[in-house]
Amino acid sequence: MEKTIKVAIVGFGNIGQYALEAVEAASDMECVGIVRRNVKAGEETINGLPVVTDIKQLGKVDVAILATPSRKVEENAKKYLELGINTVDSFDIHTQIVDLRRSLDAVAKAHGAVSVISAGWDPGSDSIVRTLMQSLAPKGISYTNFGPGRSMGHSVAVRAIEGVKDALSMTIPVGTGIHRRMVYVQLEDGADFKKIEAAIKADPYFVNDETHVQQVDCVDDLNDVGHGVNLVRKGVSGQTHNQLFEFNMTINNPALTAQVLVNVARAAMKQQPGAYTMIEIPVIDMLEGDKEELIRHLV
Amino acid sequence: MEKTIKVAIVGFGNIGQYALEAVEAASDMECVGIVRRNVKAGEETINGLPVVTDIKQLGKVDVAILATPSRKVEENAKKYLELGINTVDSFDIHTQIVDLRRSLDAVAKAHGAVSVISAGWDPGSDSIVRTLMQSLAPKGISYTNFGPGRSMGHSVAVRAIEGVKDALSMTIPVGTGIHRRMVYVQLEDGADFKKIEAAIKADPYFVNDETHVQQVDCVDDLNDVGHGVNLVRKGVSGQTHNQLFEFNMTINNPALTAQVLVNVARAAMKQQPGAYTMIEIPVIDMLEGDKEELIRHLV
Repeated sequence: MEKTIKVAIVGFGNIGQYALEAVEAASDMECVGIVRRNVKAGEETINGLPVVTDIKQLGKVDVAILATPSRKVEENAKKYLELGINTVDSFDIHTQIVDLRRSLDAVAKAHGAVSVISAGWDPGSDSIVRTLMQSLAPKGISYTNFGPGRSMGHSVAVRAIEGVKDALSMTIPVGTGIHRRMVYVQLEDGADFKKIEAAIKADPYFVNDETHVQQVDCVDDLNDVGHGVNLVRKGVSGQTHNQLFEFNMTINNPALTAQVLVNVARAAMKQQPGAYTMIEIPVIDMLEGDKEELIRHLV
Repeated sequence: MEKTIKVAIVGFGNIGQYALEAVEAASDMECVGIVRRNVKAGEETINGLPVVTDIKQLGKVDVAILATPSRKVEENAKKYLELGINTVDSFDIHTQIVDLRRSLDAVAKAHGAVSVISAGWDPGSDSIVRTLMQSLAPKGISYTNFGPGRSMGHSVAVRAIEGVKDALSMTIPVGTGIHRRMVYVQLEDGADFKKIEAAIKADPYFVNDETHVQQVDCVDDLNDVGHGVNLVRKGVSGQTHNQLFEFNMTINNPALTAQVLVNVARAAMKQQPGAYTMIEIPVIDMLEGDKEELIRHLV
């Protein structure tokens, strides 16, 4: 297949590196370069691709994959949408998704571009499953159970506590949307574990959850990017009760996030100008290949 | 909410009856009547709704829910699409879905109408999950494991064998897409069980599967419309292997099929003219309610 979709990757941290792998595994797209804030001497290319500070240096770009922190998404997306370049991101601040969509929708429409926001696994592919389950049993209760896996937000909150050198907060699902927090801390010399344990348990991130704190010699030794989810719904189809639905996955977290970003980069090429969340996009648009062949194999 | 979507139910067997329940449970649609081949004396109304032989007798109809056998779908759908009425069906002959879509797409576009085909749970909602899983791990293997639950096609095949008065074939999942067939037969007087057992095992429907045949006094005593599915995929996201995905459900079969038909009846109102399978429709379009509110709660 001709590599028709030209992709730029913005940011080259964990997600950006996995996104490059996913682009390279796709037969209908090519990465034309990487955009970073600074280009260090000796890093002018990565895997033979140009590394630049301004996307305009890359020539024609169809889609920019924003592999940057959530708080940088709006600013970056607007900049590229104004150039008529589609954007995709994995913005994950749940409470601000509707506002981001409105803001990017106006810019995207004004410049004939498409933005797909909050495209990771949660928010993202899980959102599609939650919406589908809600449709299958319109009355009922859904629970999203995360983990076992690292919570970045919780880990950062612990690292901010004085005396903590490094920290890891694992999210452990205990069912019905309730989570246990297993916190592993590496302390600064002379820090008091008991005081730090109390500070963690009193922190707003942890105060409502069952939290266990353990001291370890080296947090990095615990490093594992595996994660998972268990999504369940029990409800009513029409007027028939006790319909049961469940979705499970156990995955490499950044690899899946990057794959979703690549999928929606492809889907962005097929939408009308505007901003979309993943539940607003037909799932078939995320796949490469002939539409009728996909229908033949997947429907 | 104003009941804006006017629905007619075509056919009033098992699925039609559950479809009426699902329409009545929805706050954005109303059933304006039921279309049957014949209207028996004393059955001119059902639940206060008119029962007619010609949909034109019902006044304005936005969507016709075709709760008729798969082999009748094309003929019925074309008739209504030509009147500018959207249609939805749960056509389940997998090998003919692409052809049906092409055929109805032309008629729908010519008359400014929408047809959503093969909208049940498989094909249907399972198709969305299969497509999503395929996107999350583009390389890998998926398995769809059905049951435990009745197979209509297999049951009908057994009933066609001479000496069989009634029969039920249960589909039992044994993993990796392989199924055991548990067949329960009620015999005509004087029929030879051993001969019938041999005939079933030699039948094309059963010859490739592990099949067990048991004689029972009354097949109807085993009647249960429960069913289920276990959909699994193990594959590669980008270049990262061993990504694991699983979807399970255990459901009342006709109630879920009917709910899906009602969901796509709603979604049909939001698509451009043409014929669609469920993987071509955004999942959010199947839900009632304000779009931004749905995004806020589900993404």
